[in-house]
Amino acid sequence: MLRLSQMPWREVRAAGERGAVAVLPIGSQEQHSEHLPMGTDTLLVEAALDAAEQVLDAGGPELVRLPVLPFGHSPHHLFAAAVSLSEEVLLAVLADVLDSLVRSGFRRVLVVNGHGGNEEIMRLAVKRGALRSDVALAACSYWAVVRPDGEPEDPGRTPGHAGWFETSLMLAAHPDLVRAPAEWQEQAEPPLFDRPPATGLLVERHGEWERVHGTTDDAAAADAGVGHELLVRRARGLADAIRAFDLATRHSHARQTGEA
Amino acid sequence: MLRLSQMPWREVRAAGERGAVAVLPIGSQEQHSEHLPMGTDTLLVEAALDAAEQVLDAGGPELVRLPVLPFGHSPHHLFAAAVSLSEEVLLAVLADVLDSLVRSGFRRVLVVNGHGGNEEIMRLAVKRGALRSDVALAACSYWAVVRPDGEPEDPGRTPGHAGWFETSLMLAAHPDLVRAPAEWQEQAEPPLFDRPPATGLLVERHGEWERVHGTTDDAAAADAGVGHELLVRRARGLADAIRAFDLATRHSHARQTGEA
Amino acid sequence: MLRLSQMPWREVRAAGERGAVAVLPIGSQEQHSEHLPMGTDTLLVEAALDAAEQVLDAGGPELVRLPVLPFGHSPHHLFAAAVSLSEEVLLAVLADVLDSLVRSGFRRVLVVNGHGGNEEIMRLAVKRGALRSDVALAACSYWAVVRPDGEPEDPGRTPGHAGWFETSLMLAAHPDLVRAPAEWQEQAEPPLFDRPPATGLLVERHGEWERVHGTTDDAAAADAGVGHELLVRRARGLADAIRAFDLATRHSHARQTGEA
Amino acid sequence: MLRLSQMPWREVRAAGERGAVAVLPIGSQEQHSEHLPMGTDTLLVEAALDAAEQVLDAGGPELVRLPVLPFGHSPHHLFAAAVSLSEEVLLAVLADVLDSLVRSGFRRVLVVNGHGGNEEIMRLAVKRGALRSDVALAACSYWAVVRPDGEPEDPGRTPGHAGWFETSLMLAAHPDLVRAPAEWQEQAEPPLFDRPPATGLLVERHGEWERVHGTTDDAAAADAGVGHELLVRRARGLADAIRAFDLATRHSHARQTGEA
Amino acid sequence: MLRLSQMPWREVRAAGERGAVAVLPIGSQEQHSEHLPMGTDTLLVEAALDAAEQVLDAGGPELVRLPVLPFGHSPHHLFAAAVSLSEEVLLAVLADVLDSLVRSGFRRVLVVNGHGGNEEIMRLAVKRGALRSDVALAACSYWAVVRPDGEPEDPGRTPGHAGWFETSLMLAAHPDLVRAPAEWQEQAEPPLFDRPPATGLLVERHGEWERVHGTTDDAAAADAGVGHELLVRRARGLADAIRAFDLATRHSHARQTGEA
Amino acid sequence: MLRLSQMPWREVRAAGERGAVAVLPIGSQEQHSEHLPMGTDTLLVEAALDAAEQVLDAGGPELVRLPVLPFGHSPHHLFAAAVSLSEEVLLAVLADVLDSLVRSGFRRVLVVNGHGGNEEIMRLAVKRGALRSDVALAACSYWAVVRPDGEPEDPGRTPGHAGWFETSLMLAAHPDLVRAPAEWQEQAEPPLFDRPPATGLLVERHGEWERVHGTTDDAAAADAGVGHELLVRRARGLADAIRAFDLATRHSHARQTGEA
Repeated sequence: MLRLSQMPWREVRAAGERGAVAVLPIGSQEQHSEHLPMGTDTLLVEAALDAAEQVLDAGGPELVRLPVLPFGHSPHHLFAAAVSLSEEVLLAVLADVLDSLVRSGFRRVLVVNGHGGNEEIMRLAVKRGALRSDVALAACSYWAVVRPDGEPEDPGRTPGHAGWFETSLMLAAHPDLVRAPAEWQEQAEPPLFDRPPATGLLVERHGEWERVHGTTDDAAAADAGVGHELLVRRARGLADAIRAFDLATRHSHARQTGEA
Repeated sequence: MLRLSQMPWREVRAAGERGAVAVLPIGSQEQHSEHLPMGTDTLLVEAALDAAEQVLDAGGPELVRLPVLPFGHSPHHLFAAAVSLSEEVLLAVLADVLDSLVRSGFRRVLVVNGHGGNEEIMRLAVKRGALRSDVALAACSYWAVVRPDGEPEDPGRTPGHAGWFETSLMLAAHPDLVRAPAEWQEQAEPPLFDRPPATGLLVERHGEWERVHGTTDDAAAADAGVGHELLVRRARGLADAIRAFDLATRHSHARQTGEA
Repeated sequence: MLRLSQMPWREVRAAGERGAVAVLPIGSQEQHSEHLPMGTDTLLVEAALDAAEQVLDAGGPELVRLPVLPFGHSPHHLFAAAVSLSEEVLLAVLADVLDSLVRSGFRRVLVVNGHGGNEEIMRLAVKRGALRSDVALAACSYWAVVRPDGEPEDPGRTPGHAGWFETSLMLAAHPDLVRAPAEWQEQAEPPLFDRPPATGLLVERHGEWERVHGTTDDAAAADAGVGHELLVRRARGLADAIRAFDLATRHSHARQTGEA
Repeated sequence: MLRLSQMPWREVRAAGERGAVAVLPIGSQEQHSEHLPMGTDTLLVEAALDAAEQVLDAGGPELVRLPVLPFGHSPHHLFAAAVSLSEEVLLAVLADVLDSLVRSGFRRVLVVNGHGGNEEIMRLAVKRGALRSDVALAACSYWAVVRPDGEPEDPGRTPGHAGWFETSLMLAAHPDLVRAPAEWQEQAEPPLFDRPPATGLLVERHGEWERVHGTTDDAAAADAGVGHELLVRRARGLADAIRAFDLATRHSHARQTGEA
Repeated sequence: MLRLSQMPWREVRAAGERGAVAVLPIGSQEQHSEHLPMGTDTLLVEAALDAAEQVLDAGGPELVRLPVLPFGHSPHHLFAAAVSLSEEVLLAVLADVLDSLVRSGFRRVLVVNGHGGNEEIMRLAVKRGALRSDVALAACSYWAVVRPDGEPEDPGRTPGHAGWFETSLMLAAHPDLVRAPAEWQEQAEPPLFDRPPATGLLVERHGEWERVHGTTDDAAAADAGVGHELLVRRARGLADAIRAFDLATRHSHARQTGEA
Repeated sequence: MLRLSQMPWREVRAAGERGAVAVLPIGSQEQHSEHLPMGTDTLLVEAALDAAEQVLDAGGPELVRLPVLPFGHSPHHLFAAAVSLSEEVLLAVLADVLDSLVRSGFRRVLVVNGHGGNEEIMRLAVKRGALRSDVALAACSYWAVVRPDGEPEDPGRTPGHAGWFETSLMLAAHPDLVRAPAEWQEQAEPPLFDRPPATGLLVERHGEWERVHGTTDDAAAADAGVGHELLVRRARGLADAIRAFDLATRHSHARQTGEA
């Protein structure tokens, strides 16, 4: 993958105009319980993209990777500590970035997300961008590019927050930044935002994140080896998504520029 | 269900203060192919709520139903015809409505949605509202309150747009408003927004809705009897969601008001 | 009148393009003293339009009626109970609706209002819309389309709020939703917002609505028969306004589309 | 009248706190046909206030006059020339000014307007301000503080735009800035915005201001003597409005500060 | 200098189209210690422009002067008294004014500022305006158009706030509005916003303006004669800036309009 | 310096509460002529901060460094290529970040900037933040923390854009990312935005950046050794600024928390 930050502008524009896919990672800075660092979501989306690059190697479409947006939408973590952009602000940031990329020559962009709280906003930004300009835009969250039915997946704990899944990944990707998890305090009721009480229902209750001490499940069983497997599966999933996006939209790019 | 629109204000406020759940249906006005009316999403969310009321009958929690918001976020349908609110405007409308309900005495609100394009915005509104005030807020889309694995569900065509699912429901709920569907034109490629080319990937391509003539799948096989079953299942799903929301948040309401 | 909500999009667009007038009713949900329901303004603007339809019958211009916007600008009623959109939000909603109608083929739109607090915003929206696009837009409040000098008008109590005028209309249109008015408490000073102390002066004092218990005049003398007459006069006034708007702007529509 | 611009801040705050009324004139810069200057509305609202000051002389309530806001909402005049603030911007300016005055000690403010296009926005600002803070706010347009039934009034031409009324006033107040009016071109149809075709109906048609060459009626009959009478009547009307506002809200001010 | 406010619109537009420079003064209303009036910044920017006019006399480029915007960005003075527009609002006002001037025929605009708190916003407005339209825009603050190394300049006290510099200028320009300064209270620490503790560092501390009683330096030594010299130097500086702006952008104007 | 991204939240909050200074670097992605990469401003602000850390070593105040914001306000570079946030969006991002840091326990924040186009916005954000909360905020641009009068400074070319100064720094900090500069094309007129034609005057002309091929001065003489000296001087300047900010505001922090 090329790095936009390291390229002179003529190469950036030329890449965009010949169909390269711009890749924008977005993360967050927010509490991740006692044992994981504030930048966990940012570190993991970067780790997943790094690993996907190796999977794609020379075989994939041309990619131009942007520097990660290190701040996301995390107002629900401000009870502890976070650097959060409001809905409107993050939506406007993503709109400005997408518009800039289009004005700089790109016709295809993929947003890769590391933080659950960014999902709705990322989706809105991608939908709006594709209505405004004659482009193809895509979005995914790194944890969700894999069918959660194989080993060692556990859909009930993926992604969760600062629990088994993220801690395992961090043990694989940044073991030096992981502390010993605090002793798990089983709650009488699991957090409503994570375990809705009915099919298809979102429930948000005031103070719920604080009630469950900022985490969704016990991190004690997290494991570096499992984390490595989970990460590799996401790397492959991302590589597949990138190839599929390229394939599905290559034609429309060609049509626009008058090639075959 | 009580109707907010028909109640004097003292009864509205008293209901909210004793824990009643305010229910806000939201819909859209937008093209639904050649054969379904512009208001399909609005008509169906109201039909589903009407049916859920009968399921709940006297047994459920106290509900105060608001008049439906008949306009949603439909910019992708303006190529044909729609009455659409932008992301920021719909988000602001929902925020104002939720804030008003809280100021008018409610501590629990459920938004019930009839239009796919409203989903991200409804979720953001509910999350924001629960951070701002000491309340419990919930949201769902009527088609998604049912596990799509029973008869006669077809998850690949639910909800779709103006296809088998919605046409069947309209044949059950408003047969007089359904015209004969146009002859189906099979596309070389299905719409990317409806059938993403990889797991967990959202792809939005400019002009895609127009390319597929504003619909996702063939409505020819739609059937009033199947539509009735699909509707009944959603009525039960909504009733379950309402009961579950009540149960999960009844205690927090009680705590606030100093009851048991 | 055709109903936009019940029409497939091609008929909506065709109607707009051949000059039909889109009609958008807007109302409110807000306290109306002890005896009238929250939805009074919405119910009355719909009743007036329904009656106007009968007056016009087959003789008038082609009309496409939108579903009513049930929420208006009512922050002054939140001391009791209301579902209120802020100035900016209601203005943005109306701008989005008007822009959508223009993009969907309409060149003529009439907004019919049921709530005093919406008036300035409705006027701004209509002015802005007509500057942005080559269209003719109109707006009126249902109570004001009649010269208040005939029987049984009383300009000093029209429209007022939850007093003689609205209660009479509700007794005519929705008697089942009218409770017995609370005993009238004569105020030392009438509400400043309703009876300004000098010609052409608007005075708004903090707490004024609460001071007068949310109403402007005694509803005790309200009468269903009088309400019926008042409603019929408004139906005729609306019908006249619709015909006059059609006549005044028919030519400009024709010019645009190249007809005679 | 005191001038805020010329007073040290402690005197400003002291005046506000002892109940003085802050007076904010607002105007516009916009085309006024061939013969009147761009600043006509601003010049006239200032002339009317100057004259009202003389009427009040020492007898009225304490007033602190702000410098005039010379720019208003005039997008409909940009076809020719204008300096215009959009609706949102003018509303925000007035909100900021009102909030500033409240934070600086005032509890009573009167906005005096010179431009028709500002009316709705001024009204919204005053309503909003009185809901936000424990204050009494008032607003009027200088031409409308007089019952238009006496000599030499002509309600059909008041205020109009750059016609008989404004030209007469300018001949009285600023004769050196008045040019000879262009020859009047009678229109087949009078401007719809000025002469609505039905009672209570606002009609706005694209291009209407340009069609009527930016004016509403023939200025040829304008007269300096008549203008003087019209101005004196407005000065008295403003003086009456100021006294009435003071009287109506003096008590509420007193109550707040704990005086009698 | 022509006055936009006093000109009919055709002359305004003709002047703009033949290359005249529109000049917009902006000021503030805010506390200026015990002895200077609220409007000091507005009065001084007008005084400097008046004096610059005399320097330019008939020799300079054609100028069309707008009425001063009397309100600026002064939230830091609301602890005492001010009429302040927020950043967003002042930026939007300036954007609207610049856009209006461009739509009214101008291709060159100069903003002349009288208040330190407006500087960043004025610069942003000018940059934005020149990106949006094919125009040349300029901005300056009246005190800074002079190299501060000659007699009787004192860069350490220019402009300051309500100290030696502004008081001297006011003694020259509006002696009747200057009161005796309060006795100077030497602070242990000078205000951080005025004397940053390191090169190139801006430091803003909560409550700092209040701590230093709203002023930066002792006004006792202020002098009318010095003020006159300071004002004359600014008048020459403004005249130089106007001539230089004209010279630098005259060609680009000519190019556009197809002249030599 | 601690890295916020790598710390668990309790350590972040504890550091803020005991007086640590949060340090936020901000940069840009924008054309830097033919030879420097898009991320030049971001890379250089990070290089300067890295070097400042070594100068401070263990001796300075406690610092918590945030991840760099890689996108800035660069609309003037979109003619070539850039990822730009609008004024309003960047201002809102900085406001959200500052507010988040305050809510997370910090009372002192320093913004360090790498891009000229961010300066006004950064200043506004810091001023606003210090008015909203009881905190001390500071801001600087890395190139400006040094008096430009020593060797090897050249104030006429500092910072410029993609010229001698930035190229020298990049040769010192990231030589592998520097290409051979394009042959210098001397312009008849230097860019107005960089060399204003009069003292204290900002001039912005449409198309000026494009006219000068996106750069301000010839990079041919750039030199790695000089770049190293320039960088070291900035590292010392930043270290001085950090120490001075700490010293000037340490007391106010202590006062708040009730220490000595």
